Order: sequence, then structure tokens, then C-alpha cells
Amino acid sequence: MSSQFGQVFRISTWGESHGGGVGVVVDGCPPLLELSEADIQRDLDRRRPGQSEIVTPRAETDQCRILSGVFEGRTTGTPICVVVMNQDARPDAYREMEKAFRPSHADYTYQAKYGIRNWQGGGRASARETIGRVAAAAIAKKVFQQFAPGLEAVAYVKSVQGLEATVDPERVTFEQVESNIVRCPDPATAEKMIELIKQVRSDGDSVGGVVECVLRGVPPGLGEPVFDKLEAALAGAMLSLPATKGFEIGSGFGGTLLRGSEHNDTFFMGEGRVRTASNRSGGIQGGISNGETIFFRVAFKPTATIFKPQQTVTTEGQETELKARGRHDPCVLPRAVPMVEAMANLVLCDHLLRQRAQCGGF
Amino acid sequence: MSSQFGQVFRISTWGESHGGGVGVVVDGCPPLLELSEADIQRDLDRRRPGQSEIVTPRAETDQCRILSGVFEGRTTGTPICVVVMNQDARPDAYREMEKAFRPSHADYTYQAKYGIRNWQGGGRASARETIGRVAAAAIAKKVFQQFAPGLEAVAYVKSVQGLEATVDPERVTFEQVESNIVRCPDPATAEKMIELIKQVRSDGDSVGGVVECVLRGVPPGLGEPVFDKLEAALAGAMLSLPATKGFEIGSGFGGTLLRGSEHNDTFFMGEGRVRTASNRSGGIQGGISNGETIFFRVAFKPTATIFKPQQTVTTEGQETELKARGRHDPCVLPRAVPMVEAMANLVLCDHLLRQRAQCGGF
Amino acid sequence: MSSQFGQVFRISTWGESHGGGVGVVVDGCPPLLELSEADIQRDLDRRRPGQSEIVTPRAETDQCRILSGVFEGRTTGTPICVVVMNQDARPDAYREMEKAFRPSHADYTYQAKYGIRNWQGGGRASARETIGRVAAAAIAKKVFQQFAPGLEAVAYVKSVQGLEATVDPERVTFEQVESNIVRCPDPATAEKMIELIKQVRSDGDSVGGVVECVLRGVPPGLGEPVFDKLEAALAGAMLSLPATKGFEIGSGFGGTLLRGSEHNDTFFMGEGRVRTASNRSGGIQGGISNGETIFFRVAFKPTATIFKPQQTVTTEGQETELKARGRHDPCVLPRAVPMVEAMANLVLCDHLLRQRAQCGGF
Amino acid sequence: MSSQFGQVFRISTWGESHGGGVGVVVDGCPPLLELSEADIQRDLDRRRPGQSEIVTPRAETDQCRILSGVFEGRTTGTPICVVVMNQDARPDAYREMEKAFRPSHADYTYQAKYGIRNWQGGGRASARETIGRVAAAAIAKKVFQQFAPGLEAVAYVKSVQGLEATVDPERVTFEQVESNIVRCPDPATAEKMIELIKQVRSDGDSVGGVVECVLRGVPPGLGEPVFDKLEAALAGAMLSLPATKGFEIGSGFGGTLLRGSEHNDTFFMGEGRVRTASNRSGGIQGGISNGETIFFRVAFKPTATIFKPQQTVTTEGQETELKARGRHDPCVLPRAVPMVEAMANLVLCDHLLRQRAQCGGF
Repeated sequence: MSSQFGQVFRISTWGESHGGGVGVVVDGCPPLLELSEADIQRDLDRRRPGQSEIVTPRAETDQCRILSGVFEGRTTGTPICVVVMNQDARPDAYREMEKAFRPSHADYTYQAKYGIRNWQGGGRASARETIGRVAAAAIAKKVFQQFAPGLEAVAYVKSVQGLEATVDPERVTFEQVESNIVRCPDPATAEKMIELIKQVRSDGDSVGGVVECVLRGVPPGLGEPVFDKLEAALAGAMLSLPATKGFEIGSGFGGTLLRGSEHNDTFFMGEGRVRTASNRSGGIQGGISNGETIFFRVAFKPTATIFKPQQTVTTEGQETELKARGRHDPCVLPRAVPMVEAMANLVLCDHLLRQRAQCGGF
Repeated sequence: MSSQFGQVFRISTWGESHGGGVGVVVDGCPPLLELSEADIQRDLDRRRPGQSEIVTPRAETDQCRILSGVFEGRTTGTPICVVVMNQDARPDAYREMEKAFRPSHADYTYQAKYGIRNWQGGGRASARETIGRVAAAAIAKKVFQQFAPGLEAVAYVKSVQGLEATVDPERVTFEQVESNIVRCPDPATAEKMIELIKQVRSDGDSVGGVVECVLRGVPPGLGEPVFDKLEAALAGAMLSLPATKGFEIGSGFGGTLLRGSEHNDTFFMGEGRVRTASNRSGGIQGGISNGETIFFRVAFKPTATIFKPQQTVTTEGQETELKARGRHDPCVLPRAVPMVEAMANLVLCDHLLRQRAQCGGF
Repeated sequence: MSSQFGQVFRISTWGESHGGGVGVVVDGCPPLLELSEADIQRDLDRRRPGQSEIVTPRAETDQCRILSGVFEGRTTGTPICVVVMNQDARPDAYREMEKAFRPSHADYTYQAKYGIRNWQGGGRASARETIGRVAAAAIAKKVFQQFAPGLEAVAYVKSVQGLEATVDPERVTFEQVESNIVRCPDPATAEKMIELIKQVRSDGDSVGGVVECVLRGVPPGLGEPVFDKLEAALAGAMLSLPATKGFEIGSGFGGTLLRGSEHNDTFFMGEGRVRTASNRSGGIQGGISNGETIFFRVAFKPTATIFKPQQTVTTEGQETELKARGRHDPCVLPRAVPMVEAMANLVLCDHLLRQRAQCGGF
Repeated sequence: MSSQFGQVFRISTWGESHGGGVGVVVDGCPPLLELSEADIQRDLDRRRPGQSEIVTPRAETDQCRILSGVFEGRTTGTPICVVVMNQDARPDAYREMEKAFRPSHADYTYQAKYGIRNWQGGGRASARETIGRVAAAAIAKKVFQQFAPGLEAVAYVKSVQGLEATVDPERVTFEQVESNIVRCPDPATAEKMIELIKQVRSDGDSVGGVVECVLRGVPPGLGEPVFDKLEAALAGAMLSLPATKGFEIGSGFGGTLLRGSEHNDTFFMGEGRVRTASNRSGGIQGGISNGETIFFRVAFKPTATIFKPQQTVTTEGQETELKARGRHDPCVLPRAVPMVEAMANLVLCDHLLRQRAQCGGF
């Protein structure tokens, strides 16, 4: 059950860094949506390695193939299987991981849980696993085009280590985000971030940061109290991404410093509908979207793999020193941006169809 | 599907603030566990209103009754239904909410989603909803006694507005937490917090804060990558609680300021098993518990209900001013402590049994 | 997970023959449906014991109470909890079952599975468990009134032991079914059935038979290949009822004696829509309803509890002889009729909302 | 949700007759099981077309490939993806189905449900869909080898049209079943069945029949009342197979002709455990396996596709005559045998692991 996500728009992902390939099956997708491999490829290309000088140099084109569920260019309502075959696998570069657990990586815990692990490139714990998520989310976006036009998720790098960008969540555009390789829509800060990441890489070290994501055009009514409140679904989705350590929505942790009289979002009528004068709620109240822009932040730790020697233990329980090889991102943030968007879109798509199931209206 | 939680230890909660009652059905509980109403009552008493001078004065004894699934003092493996009937309902105190949406509360969004809402006391969006969660979690603790003795969740108030407590997550005890009415194990700070909450109440205002929770004695191996990673399950569980705005685990947002070489937890052998020298991971790596103490923080916003006049709109779309009546907590933190523990225990219990299903060992 | 049914219209039942009560929680019900306790009571009264001279004399009024999810006479979209408290419990009448397993009953297997069982009146394996199903199905019928008016399930006793009724599935009415205590709409055969059941009871024996059920007004398009084909969902639902041994739809087992050229249902245009000239498919093709009347049959074995001495073994593994006491149905068929209808309605309601989720149209 | 099956051992199938391929993802499989493509291929070969002169001549080798979840010959606990690419696709042979609905096939209902259908070879409604089921079940058998050695499912053709075989469910072997191309372990009847099928094919017609399946070595305790009783799970699983019309277990429909005193299975002690003197229950009581042999029968209708002209309507609602082309089985029974076994094994595997989750013991 561990690799399935969603209740109505339900995906099942599979694949490891160095197995035959990776992919996803999407079950419950509405029929009659136009869908091509190019629609999916566009998003995979934003996620793939080797796309710029500040990400891992692994050379994968990540070409996808749709094996089922689409006929003459349209979805049929049956399961859609999307596959990406692995190409640039170099298991030998990971040979030392066969015997020693990389600090702060998943080597030890996979071994403790399953009694076995695919040590090549991190196996299932590789960021390569997110290909299936991104592919499925590209299909989710087709659902929005049909049922909630105007709905869009835009994520961007908000901070790298101590460098924080200034961004207006209501106005930031996809084009601004894509205008530089770090995916930060504040050009001046972006430049500094890129310099920092290059410096960190040359140090054999790594950095983390924060991705912010805004969801605009979300209709009121999405989210299912009490356990599947929209913020709960988003928080669970984001913390399922590799390297994440925190999630906050709207006013977040900072909001705990305010009093209720300062924090509350008063209502008024605007453009014929109920609006809030401020948006400390972050677009969700009582677990249900209120029609305002949803925005949240996700903390990503510094990449666990660094090229400095570290103390660790072997699978046989001997203490040892490990110095990583292989190909890695010195900072996951630029590639995390499309992953955060993908998970947000998967949550919204599932909740849109769930809302249709119970309450109709789409 | 919205009020069900867990895959194997699966609960289904129900009930509103002012309906006939509230409760839970637990499906999938192991048989042969000793269980009495007193076991559940103990935890409900920590959650109930009217327990101290700094929480809502609503007078509910919250007496629970087990209606099924227990025979001669032991669980039978069949569904366990626990019911608490509502007693001190005063719907008239909420009459103004029938017509006007309380700012930053769930009135508007429930109306937008369902086209109807039980406006008495917040209906399903009342904290009263959490009774079912706490009752179910009391049963989860019985599972731990049988299958993972030593496993315990201890939550406490870490901060109220700007007041932050100093607490050692490895050593803090349940008794320390319960030693004062604000449930903060740092006595000096606790006193200040109580004063602040009293002040805020007399101002007709409210405050928020942060609850920290530590999970000790969690065996390595719990958590199911990729979507049901343990931190993802915890994040989703916590953000499903009323008034939550953020979640961070281990180093959290602060961890984004470190480099990998500073952040990584190196491994060593201790007491015959693999240990980490530091614990910035917060006890979970790659989505799976590593045997170290798990700790995380949850942000709670200031209570939405305040006793000052606020701008809002009516169900008919007229702008108006609302001044709340009714009985409310000026600060949800003290009563949030058992709720956070409950959700943590529900996550752990479900994952313990899921681990047994796939990998055995308990 | 064992006592939950449905994906979108999801119910969770609980309760034993001799515990505090029995009931159900319905999650995912559409809001704004008119619903009263009387709506549910009507169906519970058809199911309850003591309603006629040919069923068990246990004196239960089975008065239901709605504890949540309904406000001012309409559903709110939040979980609906319905409770029936047990009243006429006589655990002493089952004392001999504490030590000995009743042949062909669930005593032994519950013990083997759970290591414990509530032996009073059969515990969870009592037909009393079906109260929750019938209550939930009464709510499902409200969904049909809103979204698929004209949809109706009519079940009836088709045979008791060797006595088989002649019934026209297209025209049989609820009133005809309810016109006699055995619930067989063929009056002449009904009379013989009643005589047979009385005879069997006076013999201290029991009989079984077949319930047939027709579903009229089902819109085309319900059912989800491949695993949740509509006939698969119906088969699973029916075989979950106590005492069932078989299910067949449309031509059923008899259809295996025909050639394809005799069996196929040719299409023609009628009343502006696609119709079939015959209906050996039973209203479902490829797992999806085709708009024709759905009809199926369910085999019920003779009641396991008889008042003749039988060989058996004790919980300690000693061979012994058991002669049942307690209150039992000599033939479950009359009371099985509302149970079969209930399960059919639960399947249809869930699939109606699932179809709305994926494909819209209701 | 429609193409997923199982709660703990959870499979997700995908693929159409004439798309890129078909396959399955298995989530929740225990780690450390030895598994190779050859293990799966063995079962796929029993299912594939073109294996004998009485089945469809479509030339598919159905070579499978494992793309994930297996490392160095053993399962890793992560999702296992198995793919079979389509090869001998001849869409032009189905061109007439683009415009006209084949009687008693799924053409019309898919169109009614989804508003679109892949008409090539039946799309998702092709028996080709069952490849994913058979592949997953081959993995389930590996679970049995580890956790329930001796557990085995043996299915066979019990009848073809009026020809009924004599088979002893307790003793029939896999080798006897495989000794002839119709998969009937009664050699004399098998010969007649083969003759009948050849005759029917030369007539351009088709026949149906009954597959019987025995499950031996099932430990007591499997099955989850009330909705996931073992017979309910089996019934639902079987009716999800193409062309099925009925299911009966143990005494089945015939059992309704007996009285309770004739039907009950009395208990005795044998080989140190509780046994039943007869087995009209079919190995399941109260929804839970009792350790006796489980046996059930599944009715398969005559293949819908025949080579005689039939009345039907077009997608535009015009009445027309259709004469099928393409490649089809004149009788699905021989190839249905491994499909029935596969579904039985999937049910048992899921319930074995679910029992381990709740009650332990494996």
C-alpha cells in the first residue's frame, strides 16, 4: 500500500534508481481528456538530471512511453501506465554502499525494515522514484483544464541556506520561475543562490533550503474533514518527498506569534463572492479551500550525500569511514520545484474528483 | 472516506459539537488485549473541556461507553465502538453563527462545500470531534503494551506566543507534563504561559503556540516509502488536527540553514546496535524509523473565536459585524497535547501492524 | 478493514448479538438529503426478529437513533452514525456454546482466528450484525431519490428447499413481496413455504432456499472493470451475508448449458436507446450496467442452529454432543430478503457516486 | 480504484488488448522471496493464446519482464512491476467493432460509461487483461512457499456445456489437470469436451461451462468478517473474471435442497485438531477458513464472440447486422483454469498477510 496515492485519482508508482525502469499507473482518470507523451515529457524534463550545471550530471533523457489507457489521443477511463526505462545506470559507482550505510541516507533503515536493499544508487530511495509522481501529475493537469480551468500550481525556490528570495505569491509566474537554473523568481537572489551552490559543490558539501508553492484558482469546497483536510493531504504529500523536514501553510510557525485578533482573516464581499481581507489562513479554513490563493512552504534538508569522509558502520556492524562517489545534486532545491508542484497537483486532482463524488458541481 | 484513518488499525470517527454524541469505531484491532472503559476514560479526561481555569468552561464529563468488540475485558478482534454522548449542549449561544460566518473558522467553507452546516458550536469543525481520535489512541496504546513495550509518545507545550520552554526530549516525562495546567514541563515558563493565557482571555483575545512531541522506543523499520513514509504519515495526521498550521521533524526548517557536513547524522555502534551520533534526522531516515527518538513540532494558530467585534459576511452575502458568544479556549495548546499524542499513537499503531503484515517481526 | 464496505459511500458497521448494541457509520454521504429516523426504522422493521410466527421470537424493537450527520432533517455531508441498542439479550441461553462449537456455525473459526470469541448469541457472527447494513442502505435509497429516481431493488424468496415460486422479475412489486410473511410474491407457493417452515420448526430442524433480487431503473454505466465489475461487487456483497453459499446473475449456472448463438443478447433500438432483445446477461455486460433490469439469485443454506443433538467438540478438544437452545430462525429466507436488498442498494449507491467521480453525469 | 485488488498484498493491473502492453504492479509483497521471470513465465504460458488447437490462435509469446522490486534474485519489499509487451496486434481485424456493438460483449457498456472505448480487440475488456492477474498470482505463490507451505490451489474444467467430469477434489493433482489441452482431469470426459469444442468452433459457435477450484492446505483463520469473509472475497474475485455468471461454494445452490440436520458438518477430533466429518461448508464457516479443503465452482458463459451474423446497433444508433472476425476462443474454459487459480491465490495471499497483521501467527 506504500506506493499508492489518492482515493479516486489513484496512482501506483514503482521503480528504482538502477533497475529496469521507473513508472506509474494512474487509475480512475476521467475519460476523454486529450493526452500525449509530449504532455508528460514536458514536466519530466524539468525534473530530470543533467539539465543544468548545478544538478547531478547523471545522463538520463527520461523518455516516457504511455503503454495503456489512451486511445487515439484521448484517455479512455482505464488505467494509464507510463514507463521510463533507466539508461545511464552505473552500479559500480555505488559499490561501497553495498557494505556501508551512508549517513543520513536511507541505507540503514531499508536494511532494518526489509532485511535487504537495492544499494545501487539508493534503490527505491533515489529521487529517481519521483518520475512516476511527475508523470501522473502531468495527467492531473489535464483534469484541471477540463474541470477547473484557471487552477494552477506554481512552486519556486524561496531560500537556499541563508539566502531568501522576495516573491509575491499572488503574481509570480511559471516563466519567472523557469528564467534561471535555480528556479528562483527573484533574479538577484537567484544569482547568489547559484553561486552558493557552485561553491558548496566545489567544497564537496551540500545545502538545503525552502520551496514555496502557490495554488491559484482552487475552487472553494476542496478538502475532506476530518482526516483528509486539504492541508493534511498537502502536508502528507510534501513530507513524502525525499529530503523534506517541514511543512507550513499560510501564517505557519510564524503565525503562532500573533494574537487571534491580529491573525484572523475577516470576510468581505468582493467580485460577488465571499473573500478574506487578509490570507493568514493560506486559502484553507477548517480543512476546506475557501477560494483564496493557497500557499505553503516545504523545508528540504541539505543533500545527505557529500564528498567528504564520514564515520559510519558496515552492514556487518563494523565502524568504518565512507567517502561517497556517484553522481549527486549538491542542492536538491531546483529539481524539487517540479516535484512539489506534482504532489500539489495530485492532491488537488484527487480532491476535485472526490468533491464531485460526494457533492457534485464539477 | 474523510473521517477514516489508518490502513490496518483503521478508525472511523463521527459526531458534532451539538448532535447526539461523538465517537469512534476501531476496525482491525488485534484480539486478546485487555481493555476497559477506564483505560479510555483516562485519556479522554486529559482532553475534555472544563478541566482547568485556562480552557473552555463547557461542562462535559465525556463519559465513554464501549458498545462492542470487547468481551469479558478483552478485545475480540471485531470492531470496537466507543461512544460519548453530548450533555452540555447550548445551541442558543451560537445562534448568531446561523447567519454569519465567523472569521478564520470553518463556517464559510463548510457552507461552500456541503451547501449546509450544523452551526451549533461549530458542528463537525468543533474540537469535540477529537474525542473519537483520543479514544481510539487509548486502544492503540494497548497494542504497544503487547507488541512494542517501551514505546511511548510524550507531547508537551513547547511555546505559547513568544514564550518558549526549555525541554530535553530524551528525558521529559509524562508526569512533568501533567504537573501544571498548561502542560509545559518547564515549570518557570509554564507559569508565564498560564499568566499570558489568563491575560489574553481577559482581553477577549486568543494565542497560539507550538506543541512538541517525542516518540521513544519506536523500533527500527516503521514507515512505508514512498507515500506512507513515517514523517509523511505524522505530518498528515498532525495537520488534520484543528487549528494546525505547520509541522517540522528533526532539524526542521532550522536544518535548512546547515550544510550537509554539519547536518548529517553519522553512524556508530552502541549497545550492540546501529546508532546515530546526532539526531537531526529526528529518528526517521528515508521515511523509516531508525530506532532513535522521533521528535517533531506542530504549530497551532491562535484560536479563531475571540470576543471582539469582527467584520464578516452573512450567509446571504451581506457584510456585517460579529461578536462571538459561546464557550471557547483562549489557547488550544493545553488540550492539544493529548490530541497530538493521540494522532502520533494512531500512526505508530497502524504502521506497527502494517510492518507485521509485510515483514513480520512483532 | 473487515467491517467496512464501499469506496465513496463508505460504511463501517459494528456490534454483536449480546453486546451494548449494533450500528453503522456512513461516511461520504451526499449532503442535503432529507433523512429521519423513521426512514431507517421502516427498513429495520422488515429485518427485525419477532415480526412473524416463522422467524426467531427474540423480542427486539430495534429502535434506531441517528447520533450525527443530520441537521434539521437533512444530511450534512459529515459521518452519519446510527445506533440500535440491544435489549432482549439472554446470554444464559447460550451458555453451552461457551464450551462447545456449534456445527456449521462460526464458533470454531472465530476461536481459531482470534483466539477468543463472544459466544453469547453468536457474537459478531449473529444475523444481528446486519442491522448496520440495513440502516445504511436506507440512507442509500435517499441518494437514489435524488440522483437516480426510479432506481429500485426488489428482492423476494424464490425458493424454500424444493418449493420454487413463479415470479416475473420485470413486474414483481414490493407490495406483492410484503403481502405474506415468507416474502414470496407467488401466493400459492408462499402458502406452501409457510407450511413447510412451520413443519421444519416443529421438527427442530431448518431449511434454506434462494432469494432472487431485481434491480430496476439502474442507469447504464455503473460498475468499474476490472476488479470492481458490478457483478463482482454484487457477488462479494451477497456472499458477505450470513448463511450464503452461492450467487448467480442473469443466465447463471444454467447459462453454461447454452451455445453462444443461443445465449447472446442481440441489440436493438427501443424508446430511443440501445436495448437488448433478451436479457441473459442480467443487465450487466463487461462488468458495467447496460440499462436493462439486473437480476441475480443468492443461495442460503439451511440455518445451522437446529434443536437436535449433534456431535461436536469442546474448546478443550473433547468430543461431545450438543443440543442447541436459544432463539433462532428455522429458515433465514424471509428476513434475508431485506438484507439482500440492502447489500444491493449499498453496491449501487457506491458505484453511482464512483461513476460521478470519474465520469460525471449524475 | 477499479483495477486494484487486495488490501495488503495489493495489485494494480493495466493494459489493453491492442495497446503497448499489459502488466501489473504488486505493492506490499514481503521481502526476501526468491523470484525470477521464469517463475512468472511458467504461469503466463498456461494462460497465453495459441497454446493448443482449441484456443484462440493469436500468436503472443507473452514474455514477461520484471522492471522493479527484485534485486539479485530476491524481492526487496518495494513495488514489483511486471510488463508484457503486445506483439501480434491486428487492429484491422476489429474494424467493424469500431462502429457496431458486438452482442453480449462490453462494447456498448464501455461506450455508455466512458463515452469512448478502445475497440481494438476489446480493449480493456479483452481476456488479455488477465495477464497482470496471473503474473501477480505467481508472486503470491512464492509467499505461500515461505509462510504457508503446502497451500495450493488446483482448478480444472468441471463441465463444458452438458459434459460433466467426475473429479475427487481432495485428490486431484496439477499434473492430471495439465495432462490434456482442455484441462479436465477426467480423461474420458476430457476427450469428449475437446471434440465438442472442435465441433462448436467449426460451427462458428461457442460454449461455456464450469470451472471447479480446490484450495488445499489453507490454515484455519483466514477471512475477515463481515464484509471480507473469505467466500465473499472469493466470489468477488471470481466474478471479476471475464465471462463469469455464477459462483458457489461447498454445497452451493444444491445445498438449499437439504435440511439443516442433513447439511450441518459435525465436528470431531482428528490428527490432533478440530475436523469436520463432512464438508458441505466448503472449508469456510462464518467467513473464516476452518482448515478443511475449500472448494468452489465458477460458471462461465459461452464466449460472446461467434462467427454467425447477429442483429445489433451501431454507435450512431442504427440497427445493423454484425459478423465477427478476429481471433477468439470458442470456449474460454481451458484458459480460464489458470485465471481462476490466480484469483484464488491473490485472495489467499492478501488474507494471509492481513491475518498476520491483525492476529499474527505466520
